Amino acid sequence: MGVLPPLNGMIPRRKHNASSGSIPPPDDKHASNDYILSDGGSKEGWRSALRRRFNRKTLHKRLPITAWLPQYNTEKAIGDLIAGITVGLTVIPQSLAYSNIAGLPPQQGLYGSFLGCFIYIVLGGCRAVPAGPTAIASLLTWQVAGGNVQKAILLSFLAGLVELLMGVLGLGFLINFVSGPVSSGFTSAVALMIATSQVKDLFAISVSGTTFLQQWISIFKNIHNASIWDPVLGFICIALLLIMRKIGMIKLGAKSEDGPSTRQKVFTKCMWLLGTCRNAIIVIVTGVLGFWFVASYGESPVRLMGPIPSGVPTPQLPPFSYVRADNSTADFLDMVSELGSGILVIPLIVLLEDISICKAFSDGRTIDATQELIALGVAGIANSFVQAYPGGGSLARSVVANGSGVRTTFNGLYTGLMVILALQFFTQYFEYIPKAALAAVIISAIIFMVEYNVIKPMWRAKKLDLIPGIGTFVLCLTLPLELGILTGVVVNIIFILYHAARPKFSVEMLKTERGVEYLMITPDRCLMFPSVDYVRRLVTKCAASSSVPVVLECTHIYSADYTAAKSIEQLTADFHARRQPLYFYNVKPSVCSIFEAVAKPEHFVVFYEDEELDRLLAADDRLPPPPDKLPAQP
Amino acid sequence: MGVLPPLNGMIPRRKHNASSGSIPPPDDKHASNDYILSDGGSKEGWRSALRRRFNRKTLHKRLPITAWLPQYNTEKAIGDLIAGITVGLTVIPQSLAYSNIAGLPPQQGLYGSFLGCFIYIVLGGCRAVPAGPTAIASLLTWQVAGGNVQKAILLSFLAGLVELLMGVLGLGFLINFVSGPVSSGFTSAVALMIATSQVKDLFAISVSGTTFLQQWISIFKNIHNASIWDPVLGFICIALLLIMRKIGMIKLGAKSEDGPSTRQKVFTKCMWLLGTCRNAIIVIVTGVLGFWFVASYGESPVRLMGPIPSGVPTPQLPPFSYVRADNSTADFLDMVSELGSGILVIPLIVLLEDISICKAFSDGRTIDATQELIALGVAGIANSFVQAYPGGGSLARSVVANGSGVRTTFNGLYTGLMVILALQFFTQYFEYIPKAALAAVIISAIIFMVEYNVIKPMWRAKKLDLIPGIGTFVLCLTLPLELGILTGVVVNIIFILYHAARPKFSVEMLKTERGVEYLMITPDRCLMFPSVDYVRRLVTKCAASSSVPVVLECTHIYSADYTAAKSIEQLTADFHARRQPLYFYNVKPSVCSIFEAVAKPEHFVVFYEDEELDRLLAADDRLPPPPDKLPAQP
Repeated sequence: MGVLPPLNGMIPRRKHNASSGSIPPPDDKHASNDYILSDGGSKEGWRSALRRRFNRKTLHKRLPITAWLPQYNTEKAIGDLIAGITVGLTVIPQSLAYSNIAGLPPQQGLYGSFLGCFIYIVLGGCRAVPAGPTAIASLLTWQVAGGNVQKAILLSFLAGLVELLMGVLGLGFLINFVSGPVSSGFTSAVALMIATSQVKDLFAISVSGTTFLQQWISIFKNIHNASIWDPVLGFICIALLLIMRKIGMIKLGAKSEDGPSTRQKVFTKCMWLLGTCRNAIIVIVTGVLGFWFVASYGESPVRLMGPIPSGVPTPQLPPFSYVRADNSTADFLDMVSELGSGILVIPLIVLLEDISICKAFSDGRTIDATQELIALGVAGIANSFVQAYPGGGSLARSVVANGSGVRTTFNGLYTGLMVILALQFFTQYFEYIPKAALAAVIISAIIFMVEYNVIKPMWRAKKLDLIPGIGTFVLCLTLPLELGILTGVVVNIIFILYHAARPKFSVEMLKTERGVEYLMITPDRCLMFPSVDYVRRLVTKCAASSSVPVVLECTHIYSADYTAAKSIEQLTADFHARRQPLYFYNVKPSVCSIFEAVAKPEHFVVFYEDEELDRLLAADDRLPPPPDKLPAQP
Repeated sequence: MGVLPPLNGMIPRRKHNASSGSIPPPDDKHASNDYILSDGGSKEGWRSALRRRFNRKTLHKRLPITAWLPQYNTEKAIGDLIAGITVGLTVIPQSLAYSNIAGLPPQQGLYGSFLGCFIYIVLGGCRAVPAGPTAIASLLTWQVAGGNVQKAILLSFLAGLVELLMGVLGLGFLINFVSGPVSSGFTSAVALMIATSQVKDLFAISVSGTTFLQQWISIFKNIHNASIWDPVLGFICIALLLIMRKIGMIKLGAKSEDGPSTRQKVFTKCMWLLGTCRNAIIVIVTGVLGFWFVASYGESPVRLMGPIPSGVPTPQLPPFSYVRADNSTADFLDMVSELGSGILVIPLIVLLEDISICKAFSDGRTIDATQELIALGVAGIANSFVQAYPGGGSLARSVVANGSGVRTTFNGLYTGLMVILALQFFTQYFEYIPKAALAAVIISAIIFMVEYNVIKPMWRAKKLDLIPGIGTFVLCLTLPLELGILTGVVVNIIFILYHAARPKFSVEMLKTERGVEYLMITPDRCLMFPSVDYVRRLVTKCAASSSVPVVLECTHIYSADYTAAKSIEQLTADFHARRQPLYFYNVKPSVCSIFEAVAKPEHFVVFYEDEELDRLLAADDRLPPPPDKLPAQP
């Protein structure tokens, strides 16, 4: 935060504002220190720039571990331990299930759930972000890599590289152009698509088609082939999960005046633990059930996961070529062109999800998108060396981490260790987990991502915002996801451009102190190229209806460009040609210098004090009739 | 122009502005009529909407001939006659030369120079626009149709259709997004490309390549094959044309105090005529020379135009199929896909050129882009029935028309009749015109379209605008034209978006009347989704440096959206959580309702009068220390 002297282009704190009557002018003795905040922009030598880049603050910013590790203590360690283990119990079933969304073998999800956590400890800026596979990234991976393991791993490498590059280039601001409505529409559509993708496992049927509609048509065509026990187990699991979720929210004694008693606190904590570990509980119970069926009868009435290779993956280079189904070899460039825009889309979407999590758990701290990009990028690149597919921060796990009393990013250590333990010792038990139970885990989590509850406030706040919101939702369900969200963003940007192109005006007929009538026209925003023609047309139209002098009030014009200056020049020349005076009132110095560079000085007259207007009018030879004979405004 | 009651969203003419001290509050008895101008947007029944669409004003707007014909008189008729004939003398050599730019037979240009003029009389809104082939449209036609006559004619039909459609849908505003710098860069690049395309005729060499660079490489490779007499004739013609142009600008006695004498006036008029008809003079003189060579020696030392078919083309349908070089037939859809984006680009570029001409000769009248689109569209469609290729309004001829004292669009009648006469009786003489002379005509006109003179004012006004300007220029020379201008427009739109994303702030430490210190933060523009995060971050940063109450001054926030409301809600919640008071000052009602729809009412406190602030602070239990013990601002 730099405290700089007033810059060119700041809001004029001149007479206009300071004496606006509503806020008293600041006492000159305790005078206000007029300064402007800026994210850089000050000119500095390379020496100081270098020094600035390598000071302690920057170190803390770029290696967040250096900021919190010196203050680490037992209390924080306990919080992180509990949170890490709880998140571990969530991430293991989730990883197995999410790899199914990505169309990859189940161990692939686990491969992406430990190394990223370790890296995030060192580089991550937000304590409640457990890096690992996410539902959205999994769906995108499926759409981009089509279930090909090699492509998915390379995608993690390339997406990580893009994230890192975006971080270094400071392109994190790009996600600001994804508005709230577009983001909500996208998330809701993704949630529905993920739920749809799980229906096949819930009913044990085969489903074809890629779009939402095709898949549901296929589901209704094949539903008669459904087994009985898979959906029975699946729906029971869903019901249990929803009930446990509700139980987890119970807070005994929260309403009593002297707070909850110790017994109530313990009960609440137990209920919370039941709710938090519901996924692990369901997966373990149904896994035992599956094991029992196989052990007792040799087969299970519901479809099981099947064998999962055991052991932590040995680090190796991500695959830069693969053998296609027709035995031809796709080299690196072939793979890149097959992955296509996914290499750019996945980093942006992952960042979008990550930042929204950071914001939700920021406690009012500012979020450093650059650092998040660097952390996610390095984690993605590293993950690709242990055969993982793209991931990021997952909202579901962040809620768990936050609820478990997480204190620093160090909790990731325990989560990662648990995943390694699972990979090393427990994969042979995972094969007995019923597929329908995992589908239930996903469905019962994902339905809460459908943000139907934003429609009402959006309707009350700004109905127009429903267009990009609902538009993105519908388009994401019917088009490829990246096209859907891109269209939403473009539509929303068109709003901004329309905004820039159509300023509002107020037009008033006023009188000077000497009683000369004049027309005061006040545009309400900056003059940039999309709007200048409109402004010129409107000013000309207003002025043509009478021959009184026109004053263009420029208080709200905080910026202008060359096109605007050309237009102002034409406007002044037009007024000069038909001998109607045109004055500019309260033009900001930065804007004034732009206009003066183009307009003829004898046509472009600026004044700042009201008294000047009378003097200007008296001196103006273009004004033939004396004030009392001015034509009346129709 | 509708005079409407104040609309929601207009600039608040509340206390803030009206009593700003600089402009006296309007006398309430002769009270200002506070109104806002709007281009529609008022709610009206279909009856009145229908009535509005079919009244006399609309008739005059949509059939401009109905507006000027009843007032037509002898004086105007004489002005139009002179202007029409002078333009005719310009358009005939230009048409022959421009068809060469389009890579089409010379008569094709003449075919496009009469019917469009007749139609523009009825539908055209700007008196000084002689519709016909233009240099830019010819170059684009060459790029899109590649010298294929059938495709060029169909292009005229389709481009006309698109123009008409754009007119009906009111899409003329799209050209507002082409800023001055982009337009200048594009025009300059086109001028250089057109000049380059004429070098081959000037030196009588063959040139290959499509881009600017390729063509110049080819020119330098083949320059040793150049004939002697073609460049000699060409450069003499260029020199003569430039001298005649200068002579045409001579104004005798303009500086003497009692104005020019009659003799001086006559001399000036003659010089002007010489300058205006320079193209016709050069073409006639060199044509006679060519004829003499052929008649005397049987051949000419310079290359001549060659035979041109005689007669006005018989109206026929534009070709909806053609036979390719390999004897396969391309049907309508093939042709459309071969023309590709040109069908959309040509209408936009033609409109851009047309509107810039209209603006230059508008004399302060407003320009109706919709009507221009309709006129150009109908003219383009009609032209395609007489085998013409796309055209529009040409700046060169408009200058001539305006200089010749044009009064109404009726001058087009004489121009069109002259072209018909030329086609009927003079084409056999056109074959003796040397190609180098036509190249000279084009080159000596087009070099003045290179707008190097805008660089200086652009540099003085806004250096940043040089980026889209020079960028468009370079890209148009290296990429296909439409890609070049598109990139320029996108870069310029990014400026607008950056602008929307990065508002400026002023931050002041003020004191209330009771002496309580508070931080006043004033953003200078609207809160829309690209900027809300930035605003939230900055406000949080400012406020974190002290614990004094914060006032967000919203006078300049003229608009907001749902994303902004969400951000404001988070901001208020953050401040509430850390017990620092946050108030909103002077929020406009329209913006206030957006924020209130999302934020919690107990967190979102708005005030409009300064006295309220002290009361609010006194009542706020979040403010623990008494005013005199407030921590000092660091």
